[in-house]
Amino acid sequence: MDLDVVFLGTAASVPSATRGLSSVLIRRGGERILVDCGEGTQRQLMRSVGLAEVDLVFITHLHADHVLGLPGMLKTFGMRDRERPLRIVGPPGIERFMRDMGRVIGGLKYDLDVLELRSGPVWQGDDYVIEAVRTQHGTPSIGLLLDEDDRPGRFDIDAALALGVRPNSPDLGVLQRGGEVTTDDGRTVRAEEVVGEHRSGRRLVYTGDTVPCESVLEAAWDATLLVHEATFLHEDAERARTTGHSTARGAAALAAEARVGMLALTHVSTRYAPRQLLEEAQAGYADAIVARDFDLVELPYPERGEPRHVPRGGRPRREAVGAGWAGEQAVEEPG
Amino acid sequence: MDLDVVFLGTAASVPSATRGLSSVLIRRGGERILVDCGEGTQRQLMRSVGLAEVDLVFITHLHADHVLGLPGMLKTFGMRDRERPLRIVGPPGIERFMRDMGRVIGGLKYDLDVLELRSGPVWQGDDYVIEAVRTQHGTPSIGLLLDEDDRPGRFDIDAALALGVRPNSPDLGVLQRGGEVTTDDGRTVRAEEVVGEHRSGRRLVYTGDTVPCESVLEAAWDATLLVHEATFLHEDAERARTTGHSTARGAAALAAEARVGMLALTHVSTRYAPRQLLEEAQAGYADAIVARDFDLVELPYPERGEPRHVPRGGRPRREAVGAGWAGEQAVEEPG
Repeated sequence: MDLDVVFLGTAASVPSATRGLSSVLIRRGGERILVDCGEGTQRQLMRSVGLAEVDLVFITHLHADHVLGLPGMLKTFGMRDRERPLRIVGPPGIERFMRDMGRVIGGLKYDLDVLELRSGPVWQGDDYVIEAVRTQHGTPSIGLLLDEDDRPGRFDIDAALALGVRPNSPDLGVLQRGGEVTTDDGRTVRAEEVVGEHRSGRRLVYTGDTVPCESVLEAAWDATLLVHEATFLHEDAERARTTGHSTARGAAALAAEARVGMLALTHVSTRYAPRQLLEEAQAGYADAIVARDFDLVELPYPERGEPRHVPRGGRPRREAVGAGWAGEQAVEEPG
Repeated sequence: MDLDVVFLGTAASVPSATRGLSSVLIRRGGERILVDCGEGTQRQLMRSVGLAEVDLVFITHLHADHVLGLPGMLKTFGMRDRERPLRIVGPPGIERFMRDMGRVIGGLKYDLDVLELRSGPVWQGDDYVIEAVRTQHGTPSIGLLLDEDDRPGRFDIDAALALGVRPNSPDLGVLQRGGEVTTDDGRTVRAEEVVGEHRSGRRLVYTGDTVPCESVLEAAWDATLLVHEATFLHEDAERARTTGHSTARGAAALAAEARVGMLALTHVSTRYAPRQLLEEAQAGYADAIVARDFDLVELPYPERGEPRHVPRGGRPRREAVGAGWAGEQAVEEPG
């Protein structure tokens, strides 16, 4: 089952010419989960992977830069004749936000199923669950945990046959499902003799805005990918603390303690060059990246390799259109 | 005094990979007037001419695609420490919209001066006025008219001297200001002998969404530039009428009757190829263009030439980032 994360907006608070406001799209098989929906998210989708028919929108908190793209996207879904209901999950305040936006959005032909909570399960997939994790941002806030079920171990058919299990018989299925069978010569073969250990699923955590905290550490334990905010450098640690944000160093320390497979930093401020954030993070945790808009991270199953960072499709980094053509400079991020 | 119009978003209802939602920036000297503010407008500014410290925001109507970029932009102004008040003008409903958005925007350190009206003057510049013009869109709606004062005629100093007016004397100023003087040999020279006729100012009309209507025709009479919506082709004229929109043919007919200097069509639907809109418009009015995002139109004074369409700075038309890199196609407009 393919699993990846597409970074749609990686800016902190204010967009720039190269970074949109907070949003990532999680793609798992055919399912699409949008996490945060800053202004412009629908167009960031159109500019990259297409406007997905998302199944779930997960809002980490109700600050403007994480949520103002939602009403327009819902409206666009309506104009595209969406019919199936859409679940929207958020912390306390999400219901009121949706009511406030109601007059602007107007009538929709599909149902919105708004779920407001502080923590706990929010979405049950076939073989995974999504949970809300408490975060600490000075306003009601939640992070997302996507946790896949363990998968059955690998069935070693050659070993089974060598032990005398009948070929092409229902006995093979019985063993695969964990049972035991008797061979023609009366010997008992148990599943654990021919089926490997359960293989772990993948685990993905997206923090939204928060200081590094215990609940995120717990959720991120052994995670395949941790997407953590890093609004500040350590030199501004005090400001990070008072505004309920993380530093790159703080995020890296948490990632190292949780032994995650990869740390992807986002919520990038124009205050710094991204390279500064990267260097500070990598000093504390080597497998760190700083995400850019339209990057994606692929999460193979653990036995198939490490998470892989795919920078946006080979395009030049600066995408400002028309910069300088009118005698004024587009605002571009430094470094 | 330089005057131009920057097209920030030219899409109808739903954005695309290449077109943002409705907004134009009028730049006159150092003044900046934003007309409509669809989702993503602040970033469209950053991607082109920079995030202007706008003096006035003029909202034509309260449909989501024209207004959802406003709260985020106001928030960004706040984060950039804007201090001076911002006037926001809109039709009935704008005050309520601003109240609905208040909780999301939170406190701002600068004042918002919200003016709600159906028509009439909304902004008095040094030598121009901005008025709201009634439009017809099935919801309270207004268009914008920017109307410059006439300028004094050109003073022909050589003619004045030839008539015996004393060189380097205050008499020259008297004549320029419309007075009369007596020469050394007792002859009276009147201003109209040496000053040309008053020169007209420029006139700019932006319709927002509307059917072609009398009040727009009147406002656009002899206008330098008419920015008119053209959501439909004539083949869908009935649908245009019932939804309160214009066809390219309808906009062109109005432009021809009003004898405008240039007609710029916007609010472009992905339903058609822009070329179709252009051909239909030009059949009715030759000086028509279909605006694209980041195009601008310069409006010189009439004696210095016609309005000039400057396509966005020489970049390839398709700007979709990463289209196809993840096995999915970006949504792009046809044609």
